[in-house]
Amino acid sequence: MFSTAARALASRSLPRAPSILPPSRSMLTVSRLSPSVAELTLDKAPANTLSLEMALAFSAAVSEIEADPSVTALLLRSSSTKIFSAGLDISEMSGPEPARLADFWRAIQGTYLSLYSSRLATVACIEGHAPAGGCLLSLMADYRIMTGGGPRIGLNETALGIAAPYWLKDMFVETVGRRNAELALLKGTLFTGEEALAVGLVDEVLPLEEVYPRAKEEVLKLARIPAKGRAETKRLLRGAAVDELLAGREADVAWFTEFVLEEGTQKGIKAYLDSLKKK
Amino acid sequence: MFSTAARALASRSLPRAPSILPPSRSMLTVSRLSPSVAELTLDKAPANTLSLEMALAFSAAVSEIEADPSVTALLLRSSSTKIFSAGLDISEMSGPEPARLADFWRAIQGTYLSLYSSRLATVACIEGHAPAGGCLLSLMADYRIMTGGGPRIGLNETALGIAAPYWLKDMFVETVGRRNAELALLKGTLFTGEEALAVGLVDEVLPLEEVYPRAKEEVLKLARIPAKGRAETKRLLRGAAVDELLAGREADVAWFTEFVLEEGTQKGIKAYLDSLKKK
Amino acid sequence: MFSTAARALASRSLPRAPSILPPSRSMLTVSRLSPSVAELTLDKAPANTLSLEMALAFSAAVSEIEADPSVTALLLRSSSTKIFSAGLDISEMSGPEPARLADFWRAIQGTYLSLYSSRLATVACIEGHAPAGGCLLSLMADYRIMTGGGPRIGLNETALGIAAPYWLKDMFVETVGRRNAELALLKGTLFTGEEALAVGLVDEVLPLEEVYPRAKEEVLKLARIPAKGRAETKRLLRGAAVDELLAGREADVAWFTEFVLEEGTQKGIKAYLDSLKKK
Repeated sequence: MFSTAARALASRSLPRAPSILPPSRSMLTVSRLSPSVAELTLDKAPANTLSLEMALAFSAAVSEIEADPSVTALLLRSSSTKIFSAGLDISEMSGPEPARLADFWRAIQGTYLSLYSSRLATVACIEGHAPAGGCLLSLMADYRIMTGGGPRIGLNETALGIAAPYWLKDMFVETVGRRNAELALLKGTLFTGEEALAVGLVDEVLPLEEVYPRAKEEVLKLARIPAKGRAETKRLLRGAAVDELLAGREADVAWFTEFVLEEGTQKGIKAYLDSLKKK
Repeated sequence: MFSTAARALASRSLPRAPSILPPSRSMLTVSRLSPSVAELTLDKAPANTLSLEMALAFSAAVSEIEADPSVTALLLRSSSTKIFSAGLDISEMSGPEPARLADFWRAIQGTYLSLYSSRLATVACIEGHAPAGGCLLSLMADYRIMTGGGPRIGLNETALGIAAPYWLKDMFVETVGRRNAELALLKGTLFTGEEALAVGLVDEVLPLEEVYPRAKEEVLKLARIPAKGRAETKRLLRGAAVDELLAGREADVAWFTEFVLEEGTQKGIKAYLDSLKKK
Repeated sequence: MFSTAARALASRSLPRAPSILPPSRSMLTVSRLSPSVAELTLDKAPANTLSLEMALAFSAAVSEIEADPSVTALLLRSSSTKIFSAGLDISEMSGPEPARLADFWRAIQGTYLSLYSSRLATVACIEGHAPAGGCLLSLMADYRIMTGGGPRIGLNETALGIAAPYWLKDMFVETVGRRNAELALLKGTLFTGEEALAVGLVDEVLPLEEVYPRAKEEVLKLARIPAKGRAETKRLLRGAAVDELLAGREADVAWFTEFVLEEGTQKGIKAYLDSLKKK
């Protein structure tokens, strides 16, 4: 159901064939904080939006890191201190070609499938804004540290006339609790760091200059927990949710593509894009 | 399994046949706060108890409102500022005729089936007491605003020697969290507005004179969220719970009627009614 | 699957045959606080560790108490104010004989199966430390009161290189909420009473000398709630979790024994025991 290149990239055990990866790889960088701790930096100007290619590059990079047995922990960050990620690339959803729209959604699912129940200890360093898909990337980490004061985080899909998929909704519920999730999802709430801390959407809020140093400290600390018991604990907590999406992946693709292709949804997306242009 | 008239009233797409509805309709009124916002006022003196007829009238009114595409939001309130609803009409459960007891429970289920996953944005304006079934009606809303100081809200079924059904228990758990729910259900706790706010059972607590104005403001605000994404989000959050009861409705009826008809339960109900008479 | 003696002891309706029980019974005592309230005191020096025999004795005692219709409530405590229970007897897991390891795990499951959804109202009086299996015993109660200041409580299995089983993880999640549980399980956090109160792991924290008097007061109070509705409410809240383990008991035994017998796990356990000896 994936186009050929997309299928190769989206599979959970990715070939490292340089003929496929380089174009995507320019969108993010992987480095080491220590022999056992990797750092994955989103680096697609201006806003790290998740296009089909960016989503594929993300899960490819995560799978490659996970495949290296010497790595036990991962720090996720953005090259911009203004924006962690602005979320889904809305142009993928405006007047889309149906086959690409389906591949786009499979790639978004792939980011979740690659990271949520990963054996890696994971920390999200959220220095800038993280709405919608940016919040999705943050939610997959084991620990979230965010800048106070300015940037916002949350699932504001309803403002765009769409809905977060059930697996993203579930991950949000597991993080902030059902009632907080319900209210925030219905209203499309974007939280400041302080508000996010109050509902449990992030675990720490700090001034910008302290976020990255503290995130490094925390990921190095998590890397010291015995890896076997910690990975099994995470599998017990999150594995069933990932397995559920794996089993119903195409039904979720059908749900998303049908909803997005409806005339009313397309009108809402167009109105949203027009309002952005006017700003 | 419903008696004929009851079946007609309880179906989710109700006929508006005036020959059936008028007797019930005197128990509640429907009006408009704006072209797209309906107001449903419980108006059955003295305590808005949920008898078979009141429960049927409630779900009939909700279904009728929902069937009107021009309505996107609903405010639920009571004509009394002393009592939102005193809950189930206990006389339905004291020495009951088994067939009516079963119809009574189907009608109570019907209130939940008609409103919990409704596409409508819903606000409960809780000016007075809301124990047991009164709390049930409140829990189905998207947002709850309650008077501080005097009135109480909660699921105090155990005090009567009965148990809240699994779907009401689940809705309570989703609202206040599992641990708060467990403690409150086991003890039959009735909360003041301030206590209810602390556990998340209501979302705002205000002096009596501010509750209704604020509830109106909130429902008009919720009505402005794009309806399509919001309704889909609510369906994703609550649809599975409603579908589960729809699939197992008669098993739940059997559970309730058998429990209520047991000699020990009847003794407890009689003792409770006697204690009320002495007050 | 159990050895013969173990099977007899672990069954949920235990024979009271004195030829089997006395050896275990010296590990705990049962008394009455009132005609309807039993007190179960863990009394296996020095740390109330859960060996195969201690776990069997625990569930045997609970089942015997539950089988007495005059009893409606149970207070659980330790004869030591320093240690409630140090949890699983690690020597059962170090270089174990596989058949006994499996019986050991069935007996640990048995503690949960005997108490979690019990019709009895239960209060845990946690005067001293309650790590891992000690926390497990506490979590099964309806209400937890703990000493402030010194003792710790929590599920620190990951520190030992193992993972809490899914049913213990689920019970922990139901108590402290998913996000608190996730963080604490991944890090193996041990909480002070005050920290435990903040996340909902215990319900009250008091100075040592007030813990037992308050626990007695609370269990006598819970015993006064109408027993029928309260027991049914607890069954609705917890019965499904217990039934799930009953249905998949041997799969859980296989999961535990395979994980523990792995070379890497055995190395971790040995290192942990060596570190204890050095202290």
